[in-house]
Amino acid sequence: MTRPARHTAPTTRNHRRRRAGKSAVEKKPSAAPPYITRKLPPYNLLDEESLVRIETHADAILCEFGIEIRGDPVSLELFRQAGATLCGERLKFEAGLVKHLIQRSAPAEFIHTARNPARSVPIGGAHTALVPVYGPPFVRDLDRGRRYGTIADFCNFVKLAYLSPYLHYSGGTVCEPCDIAVNKRHLDMIYAHMRWSDKPFLGAVTSVERAEESIQMCRVLFGADQLENHCVILGNVNVNSPLVYDGTVTRVMRTYAAAGQGVVISPFILGGAMGPVTSAACIAQAHAEAMVGVALTQLVRPGAPAIYGNFFTTMSLRSGAPTFGQPEAMLAYMAVGQLCRRLRVPLRCGGALTSAKTGDAQSAQESAQSLLPALLSGANFILHAAGWLEGGLVSGYEKFIQDADRCGMMVKMFEGIPLDTNAFAMDAYREIEHGTHFLGSAHTMNNYTTAFYESNIANNVSYEQWLEEGELNDEQRANAVWKQQLNDYEAPPMDVAMDEALQAYMSQVKASREDRWY
Amino acid sequence: MTRPARHTAPTTRNHRRRRAGKSAVEKKPSAAPPYITRKLPPYNLLDEESLVRIETHADAILCEFGIEIRGDPVSLELFRQAGATLCGERLKFEAGLVKHLIQRSAPAEFIHTARNPARSVPIGGAHTALVPVYGPPFVRDLDRGRRYGTIADFCNFVKLAYLSPYLHYSGGTVCEPCDIAVNKRHLDMIYAHMRWSDKPFLGAVTSVERAEESIQMCRVLFGADQLENHCVILGNVNVNSPLVYDGTVTRVMRTYAAAGQGVVISPFILGGAMGPVTSAACIAQAHAEAMVGVALTQLVRPGAPAIYGNFFTTMSLRSGAPTFGQPEAMLAYMAVGQLCRRLRVPLRCGGALTSAKTGDAQSAQESAQSLLPALLSGANFILHAAGWLEGGLVSGYEKFIQDADRCGMMVKMFEGIPLDTNAFAMDAYREIEHGTHFLGSAHTMNNYTTAFYESNIANNVSYEQWLEEGELNDEQRANAVWKQQLNDYEAPPMDVAMDEALQAYMSQVKASREDRWY
Repeated sequence: MTRPARHTAPTTRNHRRRRAGKSAVEKKPSAAPPYITRKLPPYNLLDEESLVRIETHADAILCEFGIEIRGDPVSLELFRQAGATLCGERLKFEAGLVKHLIQRSAPAEFIHTARNPARSVPIGGAHTALVPVYGPPFVRDLDRGRRYGTIADFCNFVKLAYLSPYLHYSGGTVCEPCDIAVNKRHLDMIYAHMRWSDKPFLGAVTSVERAEESIQMCRVLFGADQLENHCVILGNVNVNSPLVYDGTVTRVMRTYAAAGQGVVISPFILGGAMGPVTSAACIAQAHAEAMVGVALTQLVRPGAPAIYGNFFTTMSLRSGAPTFGQPEAMLAYMAVGQLCRRLRVPLRCGGALTSAKTGDAQSAQESAQSLLPALLSGANFILHAAGWLEGGLVSGYEKFIQDADRCGMMVKMFEGIPLDTNAFAMDAYREIEHGTHFLGSAHTMNNYTTAFYESNIANNVSYEQWLEEGELNDEQRANAVWKQQLNDYEAPPMDVAMDEALQAYMSQVKASREDRWY
Repeated sequence: MTRPARHTAPTTRNHRRRRAGKSAVEKKPSAAPPYITRKLPPYNLLDEESLVRIETHADAILCEFGIEIRGDPVSLELFRQAGATLCGERLKFEAGLVKHLIQRSAPAEFIHTARNPARSVPIGGAHTALVPVYGPPFVRDLDRGRRYGTIADFCNFVKLAYLSPYLHYSGGTVCEPCDIAVNKRHLDMIYAHMRWSDKPFLGAVTSVERAEESIQMCRVLFGADQLENHCVILGNVNVNSPLVYDGTVTRVMRTYAAAGQGVVISPFILGGAMGPVTSAACIAQAHAEAMVGVALTQLVRPGAPAIYGNFFTTMSLRSGAPTFGQPEAMLAYMAVGQLCRRLRVPLRCGGALTSAKTGDAQSAQESAQSLLPALLSGANFILHAAGWLEGGLVSGYEKFIQDADRCGMMVKMFEGIPLDTNAFAMDAYREIEHGTHFLGSAHTMNNYTTAFYESNIANNVSYEQWLEEGELNDEQRANAVWKQQLNDYEAPPMDVAMDEALQAYMSQVKASREDRWY
C-alpha cells in the first residue's frame, strides 16, 4: 500500500516577483499558526465492536443496494475495471473492495499550498483547518438586513477571512455574487480569493468547464509545473444521497483529481429524508457513500488528495425543517471521526451550523455544539466554520465575527494544557500569603498576556458599565468589529504583472461567451 | 478500604399520607429519567504521566504550603489526630495522606433521596444530575428587567425547575429572596423546595444555625429515622482559595456531615487571582483544596456523602473580570474529571456559566462551552445548569428556559447512539429508491417521534414565516415559554398535615428571633 506524502511547499510565482501596492508595512493577520495542530486526543465514542458493526453495515449497503452514478459512463467504467459489478448505472461492491481502493493510494495527509507559503495548510493527521461558510445566496448584516449577495459582499467576506488569525482558508463560495452572470462569476470568485487574501481557497464545482477554469487560473498564479505536483485548490462536492452520485459531480471530481487537485466529498444527509431517521443507518450510509467518492479520485489518479466528508444533520419533527447542533449530529461527528481515522484519510465535518435567522442565542448555541464536537472528533477540514446562518441560506457579517471568535477559542483550546515547571508556578505560592491573591505576583506578571484566550466581542464589564455603553448585545458588538476590520483592511502584496495576467485570463474567458443567469 | 453504598430509597412520610390540593390529575414534569446515566465514555484528555504530575504537585502544595482552617479548632484537631502536622491554624500533609483519608471511607456513589422517591438521584459513577443556578441576588426577565430577587421569584424558579424534565434538582438558592430577613429566608427557601417541587434540593450554608434548621426541616419532612440513614439534603460550600478554609465553612460542613447529609466542596478559583494565572497550577491547587474538604467530612463521619467540586474560571486580561466558557476552563474540567475519577468520589463542575448580561449569543456560546465539556468530563453534579447570568449575579427567567433546553440536548446526547437492528434500518433501503427520500418510509413512520431531540425554543421555520411571526429572537421565544409554564404549573401533592407541620416549624423559628437584614 502506497501512502504518498505531499509535504514540500513550492515558492509561488507571485512571491518571487516585485510587489504591487503599498511598499509600507502592510496590515496583516496577527501571528497565529496557519492551521491547528491538535494537542488533544480525539474523543473515542464507540468501542471496536460498535465500529465494526457500522463498517459491516456500510459494506452491506454497498453490496446489497450499491451506488448509482447517473450520467457519467467514464466513472462507472473505472469502477467496473476496479472490480465493482455494474448493472445499468448501479455499482455494487463486495465487502472491503472500496476500502481497498482507498487505502492502496489515498494520502493520509497532504499539503494545500497557499500563494503565501507561510499559509500553506497540511490536511490530515492531527491538523485542523477552519474554513469560512460556503454557498449562501443571501447575506445579512444588522444595518441592511437580509439581501442577495453581491461580488462586493463576496470580497468583504474574503477580506474578513484573510484578517482573522483563526480562519485558515479564505474559503470558496463565501456567498453567491448574484450580481455576476452564473457562467462567469466563478472567475471573479477565484480572482477575489487570489487577490484579497493569500490563504488557501476552493474552486468552482458547478460544471466541468468552471472547474477547469478555476484550475487554469491557478496555473496562471502558481505556474503549471507547481500545480502538477502540488495541491493548490480544492473542489467541494456533495453526494445526491441516498446512494446516488450525479454525473456532473463525478465529472467535476474527475477534473480536480486528474489535475492532482483536492476533492472534498460529503454525503449531505438530513436524517429521515436523504437517509433513515435513525443515526446508525445514516452514519453507515454516509460512510459507504463517502468511501465511494474517495475511491473514485484514486481510480482517476492514484495519490490524488481527497477529503472524506460528512454532513449529517437532523430535522424538526414539527416542521420537517433541518436542525443543527443537535445531540444526534454531535454523536455522529464523533462516530464518523473514528471511522475516518480507521480509513486513514482526512476528515471534513462540523462547522458553525445553525438554522437561526440572526446572531442570537440559538445561533451561538447550535454553532458551539457544531464546532466543538467537530474538533473533538478529529476533523481535519471544517467548512462553514464562520458566517453560516439560516441553514446555509445566508452569510452573516456579524455571525462571521461571532464565529471567528469561537474559532479562536478552539485554536487556544486545542493547544492543550502546558504542564511545565512554569505552569505549576510553585514559586508563586512562596511569594503570596494564604487567602490573599496572585494578581501582582511575579508569576502572574510574567504570564498573564498569554494565559487566557481573550474574545474581541464578549462583554465582561460590570452591569453599570454595560448600561452606560448602550446595553449592546453580542451581535451588536460584532457589527462594530467587522466594520472596523474592513476599514483597516490592507491587501496582501501581489505582483502587478501577476494581477494583470489573472485579469487578462478572466477577460478573455468572459469575452468568449454570453452571460447566463441560471 | 470501606466504600459504603447508600442505595436504598426510603418512602417519605408525605407520600404515605392523604394528599392535599387538587384531587384531579396533576400537571407533572413529562416522563424523562430523573437523572442522566451517561452512555458515553468520559473524555480522557491527559495521559497517566500528566495526571501523576498534577497529583504530585497537589501533594507538594499540601506538604510545603499546607491548608489553613481559620477559626475552627475542632476541624484542625480532627486533622491533627489523623496525622497532619498542625502549626497555628495551618495544616501540612505528607504525600498521600489526604487521599488515604478520603479513600478509606468516602462513598464513590450515594443516593440523594427526594420526597418523591421516583425523583431520587444517584450521585456518582456514570450518573449526572443537572441542577439550577445557585446564589444570585438579582433576577432578570425581558418584561421587568434586572432587579433584586424576591421570594416570589424564588418560588417561580423552583416551579420552573420542577417542570423541566431535564433538570434533576429544584436547586438551592435559585435566587436570593431579598424581601425576607437574612436570618430567616433559609426557612422560606427550604419550604419552597419542599412544597413546590418534589425533586432533591440544597440547604443553607451561611451559618451553622441555618444549616441545622435546614436539616431540621428535613427531619420534619422525611422523619428523623430516614434522615439518619439517607442523604436528603446537600450543603454547597466554597473554599477561600488560595489554600484557606473559613471556619464558618468548615463548621457548616461538619454540621451536614455529622447528620449524614451531603456536602459539595468547591474551590472557587479565578486564574490569576485565587490561583496562579496558569491552568496547571490552578488544577493542582484545586485538587489539593477539594481533597482536604472531602477528607474533613470523612473525619467527622466516615461514609458521609461528599462531592468533590471544582469551579475554575479565567479572567479578562483587559478588565480583570471573570470570564466563562473559555478554552482554559473546558480543559480544566476534563483534567479535573480524570483526577476525580482516580479518587473515586463524585465530581461537581461546569454549569451554564456566562458573564453575559442577557440571553444573547455570548450567553449561549459561553454556556454551551461550559455544559458540554462538564458532561464529557464525567461530572456527576452540575450546579448552575440553568438560569445563570452575569457571572452569577443574576438569575434569568429567559436564560433558565434557554438553559433547560440545552440540558435536554445533553440528556438526549448522553443516551448515546443506538446500534440495534432497527437503528440500521436495512429494510428502509429495500423500500425506497436510490436518490429519493425516506420521509414516508415505514421505518421513518415508526421511529420519527423519538428520533431527534426537539427544542421548545429553537426556530427552524422559513425566513418568511419567521418574519410573519414577528422576527422573535431566542430570548423572546423563551420569554413566552416561562410564562406559559408558570401559568400551567400545578404543585406536586403534599399532605395537608405535613404542610402544616412544616409551616409550624418555620413560624416557631421565625418567632424566636428578630429580623436581621445583613
